[in-house]
Amino acid sequence: MQPRNPDYAQAVAASFARQGLMQSLGVRLERVAPGLCVLAVDYAPALGQQHGLFHGAVLGALGDTAGGYAAYSMMPPGSEVLSVEYKINFLAPAAGELLTATGRVLRPGRTLTVSAVELAVTRGGETTVCAALQQTLMRLAQ
Amino acid sequence: MQPRNPDYAQAVAASFARQGLMQSLGVRLERVAPGLCVLAVDYAPALGQQHGLFHGAVLGALGDTAGGYAAYSMMPPGSEVLSVEYKINFLAPAAGELLTATGRVLRPGRTLTVSAVELAVTRGGETTVCAALQQTLMRLAQ
Amino acid sequence: MQPRNPDYAQAVAASFARQGLMQSLGVRLERVAPGLCVLAVDYAPALGQQHGLFHGAVLGALGDTAGGYAAYSMMPPGSEVLSVEYKINFLAPAAGELLTATGRVLRPGRTLTVSAVELAVTRGGETTVCAALQQTLMRLAQ
Amino acid sequence: MQPRNPDYAQAVAASFARQGLMQSLGVRLERVAPGLCVLAVDYAPALGQQHGLFHGAVLGALGDTAGGYAAYSMMPPGSEVLSVEYKINFLAPAAGELLTATGRVLRPGRTLTVSAVELAVTRGGETTVCAALQQTLMRLAQ
Repeated sequence: MQPRNPDYAQAVAASFARQGLMQSLGVRLERVAPGLCVLAVDYAPALGQQHGLFHGAVLGALGDTAGGYAAYSMMPPGSEVLSVEYKINFLAPAAGELLTATGRVLRPGRTLTVSAVELAVTRGGETTVCAALQQTLMRLAQ
Repeated sequence: MQPRNPDYAQAVAASFARQGLMQSLGVRLERVAPGLCVLAVDYAPALGQQHGLFHGAVLGALGDTAGGYAAYSMMPPGSEVLSVEYKINFLAPAAGELLTATGRVLRPGRTLTVSAVELAVTRGGETTVCAALQQTLMRLAQ
Repeated sequence: MQPRNPDYAQAVAASFARQGLMQSLGVRLERVAPGLCVLAVDYAPALGQQHGLFHGAVLGALGDTAGGYAAYSMMPPGSEVLSVEYKINFLAPAAGELLTATGRVLRPGRTLTVSAVELAVTRGGETTVCAALQQTLMRLAQ
Repeated sequence: MQPRNPDYAQAVAASFARQGLMQSLGVRLERVAPGLCVLAVDYAPALGQQHGLFHGAVLGALGDTAGGYAAYSMMPPGSEVLSVEYKINFLAPAAGELLTATGRVLRPGRTLTVSAVELAVTRGGETTVCAALQQTLMRLAQ
């Protein structure tokens, strides 16, 4: 994929840094490439549900954001990105010490972009896919 | 709707109280009735995205949880509830000081339950629907 | 809801009449109002799945089309409507002699519109909601 | 993936043959393997929408069915498969003479299975991915 913004990586990092929620959850921006974004977060009780697993909403939060920045990395300078919708299927219990979300653009568009995100949890060195998310993003001119 | 657990309200409150994420986000359990659950949270920068609105993931978190407890209120004693999947459409910018999620059971089932959730944001006394979520929940015997 | 096309009903009927699939499935356009569209189809083995119920894909077809024309009824003259995505939850077996889809606009937009559709099946005079669909539509200028 | 039914291929073919809708649309069962199902259909005006492309509902029908039989191929003898829900994102106009749906199981489960389906259209020898579907299936004992 060919990025239309030569400074796409800085654009993503700058936008990510302004997201209060990502900071309050302790999410890290691990990797950005054209059409790709990887986020990660360590487990903490503040991210848990009633059984001590990662809360499904944390999976949704990471997935929505990873897919959004994967899309944003393909947008021209002066763009804003907005989630139109997303859908998440939970595949396995999110039990582990590390959660990662790998967002990939399925189809970049002038107005709408579709991303797919794979969520994986790591426990004791073993990694399991725990959710799959499919999402529509919209480009807004700043 | 006829609840199968006479103590459904306590069951929901007790489970909600064990969700670390709901506490760390500051979410309140406002109302529970058979097949219904209302959650609310006040705006704080820690819940924001890059433009100072409620982060889409907070809408997802509230919606997923409100729909899940609406379903849980209809389950027999000794049940656990699990999100199978959800889908959220964002309808309007979530700009305001208060976010509420109203989850309603569309169809209670022995194994699977489907809920719909309306998310609304209040600014200066005016309330706007900002997202709609549709979700599948699964009952597990404890 | 205020339509932007005074001839919205003819615009919907004319577009519907050009859909080969709707004709080959035998679907009828029952009602159009601003932000609303109702479709119906009678059961036939050619619309069935392996147990003689309406095939889930027929529910998807009716739902997608009813939501799309609900959205189209709110668009200005010279528009085309395109499905961006939809999600359908199956709520009850679609066993009956008549299937109806009632599409309603949740939020009309300049570019994107969100619709919700309720699908119901009638058997021996009794009507049961059998599926719920939530959908994003895009307006294209002709 | 290890099938639990040694006769999974016949089980899929026999169930597919009983689907009136698949026959009335002219859909072919192209390939079945454990956790995989490929369907195909040639373009005909009876499958079109108002602009002569494959109707989105045909994409939904093929996708729902391909994902369902991918799931069914992994189920033990004496099972029935039921769609719980699916979501489809349309990625490109479905313009061409051939439509194929490739369904793959993401996670086989005792009760619930999640499948992902890629839809592609072929025009003049060139194949384009035109939609992506994500789906939950339920196993019922016969």
